[in-house]
Amino acid sequence: MDVQAFDAYLLAHRERLLEDFKDFLRQPSVAATGQGIAEMAALVARRLTALGAKVQIVPTEGDAPPVVWAELGEGDKELLIYNHYDVQPPEPLELWESPPFEPTIRDGRIYARGASDDKGELVTRIHAIEAWLATQGKLPFKIKWLIEGEEEIGSPHLHAWVERHKAWLSKPDGRPIDGCLWEFGGFDEKGRFTLTMGVKGICYVELRVRGVSHDLHSSNAALAPNAAWRLVWALNTIKDADERILIEGFYDHVRELTPAEEAVLRAMPFEEEEIKAKWGIQAFVTGVSGFDAVKRLFFAPTATICGLSSGWQGTGVKTVLPAVASAKLDFRLVPNLTPEIVLDLLRKHLDRHGFADVEIHFLGGYRAEICDVDSPMVIAAERAAQRVYGQQPVKVLLSPGSGPMYSLSSFIGGVPVVAAGIAHPDSRAHSPNENAILQNYYDGMRYIGALIDEFARLS
Amino acid sequence: MDVQAFDAYLLAHRERLLEDFKDFLRQPSVAATGQGIAEMAALVARRLTALGAKVQIVPTEGDAPPVVWAELGEGDKELLIYNHYDVQPPEPLELWESPPFEPTIRDGRIYARGASDDKGELVTRIHAIEAWLATQGKLPFKIKWLIEGEEEIGSPHLHAWVERHKAWLSKPDGRPIDGCLWEFGGFDEKGRFTLTMGVKGICYVELRVRGVSHDLHSSNAALAPNAAWRLVWALNTIKDADERILIEGFYDHVRELTPAEEAVLRAMPFEEEEIKAKWGIQAFVTGVSGFDAVKRLFFAPTATICGLSSGWQGTGVKTVLPAVASAKLDFRLVPNLTPEIVLDLLRKHLDRHGFADVEIHFLGGYRAEICDVDSPMVIAAERAAQRVYGQQPVKVLLSPGSGPMYSLSSFIGGVPVVAAGIAHPDSRAHSPNENAILQNYYDGMRYIGALIDEFARLS
Repeated sequence: MDVQAFDAYLLAHRERLLEDFKDFLRQPSVAATGQGIAEMAALVARRLTALGAKVQIVPTEGDAPPVVWAELGEGDKELLIYNHYDVQPPEPLELWESPPFEPTIRDGRIYARGASDDKGELVTRIHAIEAWLATQGKLPFKIKWLIEGEEEIGSPHLHAWVERHKAWLSKPDGRPIDGCLWEFGGFDEKGRFTLTMGVKGICYVELRVRGVSHDLHSSNAALAPNAAWRLVWALNTIKDADERILIEGFYDHVRELTPAEEAVLRAMPFEEEEIKAKWGIQAFVTGVSGFDAVKRLFFAPTATICGLSSGWQGTGVKTVLPAVASAKLDFRLVPNLTPEIVLDLLRKHLDRHGFADVEIHFLGGYRAEICDVDSPMVIAAERAAQRVYGQQPVKVLLSPGSGPMYSLSSFIGGVPVVAAGIAHPDSRAHSPNENAILQNYYDGMRYIGALIDEFARLS
Repeated sequence: MDVQAFDAYLLAHRERLLEDFKDFLRQPSVAATGQGIAEMAALVARRLTALGAKVQIVPTEGDAPPVVWAELGEGDKELLIYNHYDVQPPEPLELWESPPFEPTIRDGRIYARGASDDKGELVTRIHAIEAWLATQGKLPFKIKWLIEGEEEIGSPHLHAWVERHKAWLSKPDGRPIDGCLWEFGGFDEKGRFTLTMGVKGICYVELRVRGVSHDLHSSNAALAPNAAWRLVWALNTIKDADERILIEGFYDHVRELTPAEEAVLRAMPFEEEEIKAKWGIQAFVTGVSGFDAVKRLFFAPTATICGLSSGWQGTGVKTVLPAVASAKLDFRLVPNLTPEIVLDLLRKHLDRHGFADVEIHFLGGYRAEICDVDSPMVIAAERAAQRVYGQQPVKVLLSPGSGPMYSLSSFIGGVPVVAAGIAHPDSRAHSPNENAILQNYYDGMRYIGALIDEFARLS
């Protein structure tokens, strides 16, 4: 690879490329409301077509945001890139220092909804490939690019889409694609570049209880069943005060760490006291610390109450006996413990404990995925980091967050994934004043160039 | 008593008195917001002065609504009347068929906020006394009238006010007042006139838990304490799924029914199946029925979750680990189990079970009160009912609801109380389209006349 020519191109075209970045950010594309989704899919398709890709806008289901599917280059070796063109809602608007869909540069950062998650990542990759094609000739392998429009609402149609288009998501002879570059990535609190090889799964449910037919005066409490109490008693059977999840059979689906996985976890920096200080607590739950805390954070399933709602929640007194009560619960999942298993075990558990009346409403889920931590994909990503950032990246076994990685890895034959990007700890994804550091974007394009080069060299 | 003259007066002045009733209803007097409170106190004071009473507007504390105190008539025998001039907030306004502070007559009912609770009762009594004075001469005993302005927010200053003015609330020689007519009363679902001699007490608290310093992404749940879980676990120690309150020492403060109280309870009609149908349930809690259900409703303490609040409560998914969680709890109390005892036992209970971090915020309370079920006050009220309604009234041992009855009964020497009024089951107190049946108001004035007459005759 002619690095000098590549870098010179980026410098020479910096202003135009930055304008292109801004065009992406000016177009709202809020999956939660549908705002600008169709326009954004068209914009992405036009841009990739201009890059020389064969592009299709492929429906998912009904009016749901389509997938933009692009193919560039030729070769037996194939790289899958996964991004998304949708963004989180920009609210609360009053907390933005500049309007969310008017990209604004201040102090070396570009501010806008999507500047980091995920338009910043998408644009970095598009611009790097443009520079490659302009300075290095054709791509050294085939790129398949899947850009979905529903990541911010839990990718509800992606898995079915992948299933329908499984042929595209493998090589012509049926072998799996050689590697996948994930949509996120970047730097940790200490400025260390990270590579992430997995995600926890998630099963998000709402539990709903109905007692009497309408809210009653609380003076009837001696005789009338109370939905809020039923909910409390049901929840209490799910996890005890020692943080042990009590759903029968739950832990049967938690496997041991492999030696390679454990090695990655042990090598990870973990600033325990800094995290506690940031959260304002003296101790982690159960008093766990050191490697036990790391193992727990990255490899223990969780059961979390995300919300509780019932009856009177305003200030002061209202003597009401609530007819309904609900809880939002998320279970973070490790490999083998799938959303389907959790739903089944939870239903059986509630029935067994006398809570057949507690309804379970499934609101979304992903399986966990941990990819090979030493795959050629990871090795290429490490070597590229050494070249561009001059440092050995921190390998993060998996993100404690979740995403549709299973659908684009194990489900399509075991494609090794790595997440490498341009985000930083103050990127404020999902929050007001989302931003990307411009230097990270410039370096990020050089990183993608190096990654293409390194991935091409590996067998 | 010259009943014919009394009735003729009411008929002759019907239109003017109805206008007077409307004047009371036109004046907003919302204790929760303070709207119109001062104006309403002044209006009540003017009206009672016009009746010939000696009236004072007496402060409670700071800017809080004052008490209107009036004295009429002379004599060793004394009757205390308790009413309140404040009303519930009118919201939700859109559900009113006519504006809440524009009294409107439709189908024999007068609609407005306060038409029943409690301006309807207050006006019925004022008009009856006016008719008495105009047709029967002076009152046969002394009336002391306490009209407070904070009943709808839990009478937070009434007890201290009574304590400060204890001399007014007994006879000149220190003996207790002979009887008290309570602010509410009326007819049950079957049109039976009721007399109520007591109220359950109440202790209303908010439990608050704080975990981490701010809401976190729920992917941190493996290490970060969750306020909502802490709240669930703490609540679960308070009452079990068999409806047994688990606070140590709680039931030590529940006395047995006296034979007279049990007799009243056994004589009360209790339409069990109709209540279940109205609430949309197959069975009462614990499967209780018959006299056990009656005893439970009127004589068992309760612990009720009135509200639960934490984290994300909107539609769909938000993967948040909430920093705070809260529950509104009301305990309905029987005699001897005071709000102070409950607060003390609850604090000790939570501490003992490892929940010293769960804050208890006391939002208000009343003691329970059960008055003599055969007092001269009750006998007079029964006889008046036989005269006016031609029926033996249903004696209700106590209201499962609450009110400041202790402060105006046991606390001032054991004044026997009876609640007798004009409300009906569709009065919609505290709800949109609050109303009173005009015939109940007309009959109610005749009832008050008969009650004055009967109370005068008893030693």
